[in-house]
Amino acid sequence: LKVFSLNSNRTLSGEIAKEIGLELGKCTVSQFSDGEIQINIEESIRGCDVYVIQSTSKPVNKNLMELLIMIDALKRASAKTINIVMPYYGYARQDRKARAREPITAKLVANLIETAGATRVITLDLHAPQIQGFFDVPIDHLMGVPILADYFKEKEMVDGDLVIVSPDHGGVTRARRLADRLKAPIAIIDKRRPRPNVAEVMNIVGNVEGKTAILIDDIIDTAGTITLAVNALKEAGAKDVYACCTHPVLSGPAIDRIQNSELKELIVTNSIPLPEEKKISKIKELSVASLIGEAI
Amino acid sequence: LKVFSLNSNRTLSGEIAKEIGLELGKCTVSQFSDGEIQINIEESIRGCDVYVIQSTSKPVNKNLMELLIMIDALKRASAKTINIVMPYYGYARQDRKARAREPITAKLVANLIETAGATRVITLDLHAPQIQGFFDVPIDHLMGVPILADYFKEKEMVDGDLVIVSPDHGGVTRARRLADRLKAPIAIIDKRRPRPNVAEVMNIVGNVEGKTAILIDDIIDTAGTITLAVNALKEAGAKDVYACCTHPVLSGPAIDRIQNSELKELIVTNSIPLPEEKKISKIKELSVASLIGEAI
Ligand SMILES: Nc1ncnc2c1ncn2[C@@H]1O[C@H](COP(=O)(O)O)[C@@H](O)[C@H]1O
Ligand SMILES: Nc1ncnc2c1ncn2[C@@H]1O[C@H](COP(=O)(O)O)[C@@H](O)[C@H]1O
Repeated sequence: LKVFSLNSNRTLSGEIAKEIGLELGKCTVSQFSDGEIQINIEESIRGCDVYVIQSTSKPVNKNLMELLIMIDALKRASAKTINIVMPYYGYARQDRKARAREPITAKLVANLIETAGATRVITLDLHAPQIQGFFDVPIDHLMGVPILADYFKEKEMVDGDLVIVSPDHGGVTRARRLADRLKAPIAIIDKRRPRPNVAEVMNIVGNVEGKTAILIDDIIDTAGTITLAVNALKEAGAKDVYACCTHPVLSGPAIDRIQNSELKELIVTNSIPLPEEKKISKIKELSVASLIGEAI
Repeated sequence: LKVFSLNSNRTLSGEIAKEIGLELGKCTVSQFSDGEIQINIEESIRGCDVYVIQSTSKPVNKNLMELLIMIDALKRASAKTINIVMPYYGYARQDRKARAREPITAKLVANLIETAGATRVITLDLHAPQIQGFFDVPIDHLMGVPILADYFKEKEMVDGDLVIVSPDHGGVTRARRLADRLKAPIAIIDKRRPRPNVAEVMNIVGNVEGKTAILIDDIIDTAGTITLAVNALKEAGAKDVYACCTHPVLSGPAIDRIQNSELKELIVTNSIPLPEEKKISKIKELSVASLIGEAI
């Protein structure tokens, strides 16, 4: 068994290696002068079960190519199995043709990873569970909910005053899963547009008045949906509003929006590591190292 | 027949479209807030023979992903054939395992392009002609030499005083091809290291004294080899030294080295467009539009 880290999640990779009692494999991932990726694997892996840890988070194209080139190198060096650990699976939101002539990038990426030579994939909270079916190799689909739930339990927030809120219809199953673990009811934000070209109305299905609300989503990207949801919950009389997600993409105006919102705290995992400028006191980062360690 | 341009070579694409008397297809290639590529093809291509023009030059990973995502979208929109025009084929220099546990990126990229759904590839001066065999779909391999030769002919440099120089052993065939067109003899720079850890000696095989020398290579990247070759030729008594190449990668110290060298002129093609900061008076850019237009 050998575990290698590429450039997206070096800290998490170190934690995972510790978890399973191994040193990370020796490998330099750098660039030639013209920007092409150069990978040197510095120890033999012939006949080994090899794990490669890499999220396809920002810079997504570079991180994906690092992964594909690493898989190619491992395959040609006669690794026995090539197991890809992708805490965050990028390009997942284009997972169907919503309009004519759109690509399906989630399937394209699956094909690219298989073509390069991966024999198994381990990932966390896919944007749609159907993406599992885009692969022909075995895929392990882990869930961030238990880690998020444990955090709220430790905070002793589990009481009759709690409600778990899904920010849209697509996320109700995920909210239900967290609610089960925290023994709480659920509510749903039911966005609708009364007439075309009229602003959306955020209607809340369920009772949040006087309660502590926890919003849950898989990805928080520009934080538009989530901060609007916070406002709607506050207007409906929620006492405090927390939010949590597995994948903190947090692009564009996200940090400003979170900072300026009435959100009490945002809990995320390190499937995508927070760069220094995003480490604000309102955001709490939990590690998925033990979850992934167990899956390896 | 429809021709689309992605982001690497918009000017060249316009020229090619003009050459074959067409408008470029409508298509926006942009990015989502998190850096993922978003492509919208804005006209029907069902049943069409589609050509996509894109070099995998810098930023190589982004340009390659644009290409793969475009191919995916075209395939799902029922294009009849998907013909990829790659004036510059990046990742070509890792085309064999020179050391243990190296990837072969040139083959990986070929596999990725085929997996995405390309049905034919048109490219220019591959770093090694063997890369043609990395594809199972038909590949048209065009040569930059005639365009470079025509330039020197127009300059009326074709006389008894000319010699064509290959900067290394690998490039002799290319030098021979240019020499045939210019009716000139060839010379070869024969680098060798007398003992380990001793500087290389640049020995010149052939007569260059009092002559106008034209160095030719496929790629000029950091310009180290070529500017050392210029010095060696000057020391051996060459009168003027010109250089030419198909693919001006020109990364890192390239421009400074060229500027400070005794090179009279460097002639390149627009397989990789020169960004503003590289447009110096010593560098002359020729267009491959007619060459590619004919192949389409
Ligand atoms: N990286 C991205 N950032 C923002 N929006 C995206 C991204 N990728 C895909 N989308 C859009 O988000 C929609 C899918 O979102 P959802 O309905 O929440 O699954 C798709 O129709 C895409 O147009
Ligand atoms: N993008 C690149 N920039 C510089 N060197 C490279 C690049 N890609 C591959 N190489 C190296 O260049 C060598 C091949 O060069 P050549 O012998 O001229 O074909 C390979 O052994 C690589 O280590």
